[in-house]
Amino acid sequence: MGKIKQVLFVLSAFILVNVSIAQEQNGETLATWNNSAAKSAIVNFVDRVTQRDSPDYVPPEQRIAVFDNDGTLWAEKPAYFQLLFAKDEVTRLAPEHPEWKTEQPFAAILNEDMVSLLAQGKGGIEKMIGATHANMTREEFNRVVTSWLNTARNPLTGKHYRDMIYQPMGELLNYLRAKGFKTFIVSGGGTDFIRVFSESLYGIPPEQVIGSRLKARYENDDGHPRVIATDEVEFVNDKEGKPIGISQAIGRRPIFAVGNSDGDLQMLEWTTAGKGPRFGMLIHHTDAKREWAYDRKSRVGHLDKALKAAKYHNWTVVDMAKDWSVVFPPAKRTTSKRGAQN
Amino acid sequence: MGKIKQVLFVLSAFILVNVSIAQEQNGETLATWNNSAAKSAIVNFVDRVTQRDSPDYVPPEQRIAVFDNDGTLWAEKPAYFQLLFAKDEVTRLAPEHPEWKTEQPFAAILNEDMVSLLAQGKGGIEKMIGATHANMTREEFNRVVTSWLNTARNPLTGKHYRDMIYQPMGELLNYLRAKGFKTFIVSGGGTDFIRVFSESLYGIPPEQVIGSRLKARYENDDGHPRVIATDEVEFVNDKEGKPIGISQAIGRRPIFAVGNSDGDLQMLEWTTAGKGPRFGMLIHHTDAKREWAYDRKSRVGHLDKALKAAKYHNWTVVDMAKDWSVVFPPAKRTTSKRGAQN
Repeated sequence: MGKIKQVLFVLSAFILVNVSIAQEQNGETLATWNNSAAKSAIVNFVDRVTQRDSPDYVPPEQRIAVFDNDGTLWAEKPAYFQLLFAKDEVTRLAPEHPEWKTEQPFAAILNEDMVSLLAQGKGGIEKMIGATHANMTREEFNRVVTSWLNTARNPLTGKHYRDMIYQPMGELLNYLRAKGFKTFIVSGGGTDFIRVFSESLYGIPPEQVIGSRLKARYENDDGHPRVIATDEVEFVNDKEGKPIGISQAIGRRPIFAVGNSDGDLQMLEWTTAGKGPRFGMLIHHTDAKREWAYDRKSRVGHLDKALKAAKYHNWTVVDMAKDWSVVFPPAKRTTSKRGAQN
Repeated sequence: MGKIKQVLFVLSAFILVNVSIAQEQNGETLATWNNSAAKSAIVNFVDRVTQRDSPDYVPPEQRIAVFDNDGTLWAEKPAYFQLLFAKDEVTRLAPEHPEWKTEQPFAAILNEDMVSLLAQGKGGIEKMIGATHANMTREEFNRVVTSWLNTARNPLTGKHYRDMIYQPMGELLNYLRAKGFKTFIVSGGGTDFIRVFSESLYGIPPEQVIGSRLKARYENDDGHPRVIATDEVEFVNDKEGKPIGISQAIGRRPIFAVGNSDGDLQMLEWTTAGKGPRFGMLIHHTDAKREWAYDRKSRVGHLDKALKAAKYHNWTVVDMAKDWSVVFPPAKRTTSKRGAQN
């Protein structure tokens, strides 16, 4: 290698090193986590499994961390955001479907009649998902969701949905990745829905999103090969579905799992029952001032059994009001054009 | 930052840079690929999509490369190695199952009566898979497959199965990864089977293996939470199943796909029909001397339609006899203890 080339290499390497230190100072310190027991528990665990001389050292390829999405990485009130998306889509598509004026569950949605809508239960929701998520390629669905994310606002806060992610959880994801963890979303929500924004909002690529899914079919009758989502639900990635979904998608038991509801109980049980060091964490929504306070009396984000299990299994319970100095990102970000994948 | 610390950083960074150059010289040059059209096509494509100033530049997160396994990354004669594993397992487990002496397909396997075994078709194979792959946790199955890999030998070559991987394909995987690609296995074989050795043989972590799968269930009746494979086939990741499997697991259309049989046709069609630069490649088994020569007349690795499609779509066809200077790794490697995951 020539002298000048050598100098250039050293120089560029030196710049890279400095950049990574700056990132460490900004991103790796869990800046909006107060200095409480929850933060200590996280940092102590991560040190234990990443320091080379630790008896509990875990090699990087086994540092799998899984996160629920609704109520864990972003908010979930007044309902799961994906359902609010489906509701908005029914309204947007209604002019093309005059029959919806009298057909349920569409009539209830269009009349904003939540009582009738809820009375239709699972069947109504599946019909709504079918009408707004199915018979599309991923590319088409991506465009629809991206457009919704860039315009729609949450009815309770008036914020864009993408601004209702939890700032401390974004820092936790960054911190774990900086420590060699591979971060996954494991959600009861739809895989294809979350994949549209997982990379831009959380830094998690689509292949690291595990969720519920519709059955898909392959078509190539016209020389334009494509994969299309049908309206048949193939897998529900909730409760005992979460360990099954993780096992099938990742093929390893995680060492770090975070959730906020009884739907996450089995994922945390299974994760923390593995041999060696394991970390389980529950986000407890205790902050009526900056967010919402709810647990066992809530329909969305119902938390009861898992909170009892946390005590028994020694999982870390995050008290949002006490452990986080900030809930949502402080400033509105600029409109993102990302999300459309080919 | 203090002066000494600065110097140490520069020094360590410089060492890292030099190490990565050494790797480039050894691993990135496709050393056992002859200087023929196939190698040029690969290198030209990779340059096109990775050079910053190229009009066809593809950002790293979209550099998804998918590889079939049997006949593409390792050999597949006299049968798919997973079936030979199942056959070996039936023999190993026979003493615990005296009823197998008269029960099909087990009797045919134990009598080495391949004609009777083949006559039982799909039903017989499913029963064999059920008896050797099901009602186990992943940890238990990993131990069984690892032990088999360390001892069993291919009946035609006398080699350990792990020594029947294709050296040039290992180099291609390394080369692509060094160029920022994420490499996946997309196989008609069982996900859980391939995951046992994908990391040690190919450098591909279990979460980047997409294959056929058995339905799984979650159990926690005794305080030992576990995920267990049932004997029910849930998804067959072959033919049109490959684009569906990729779409569900990755959520992006690959830009680079390699296969060797008609089972890979849809994966290559779908991959190369995407917008922007795409690369399709078929491994043509033309080497009766160092491996086997077969295509459209072969039951295992049947290649006919895909070979015609390759001409039409301008996919690169690798002629094993002419394009590879070496087929299998030259020296036997030492026994690997890897593969058992928790």
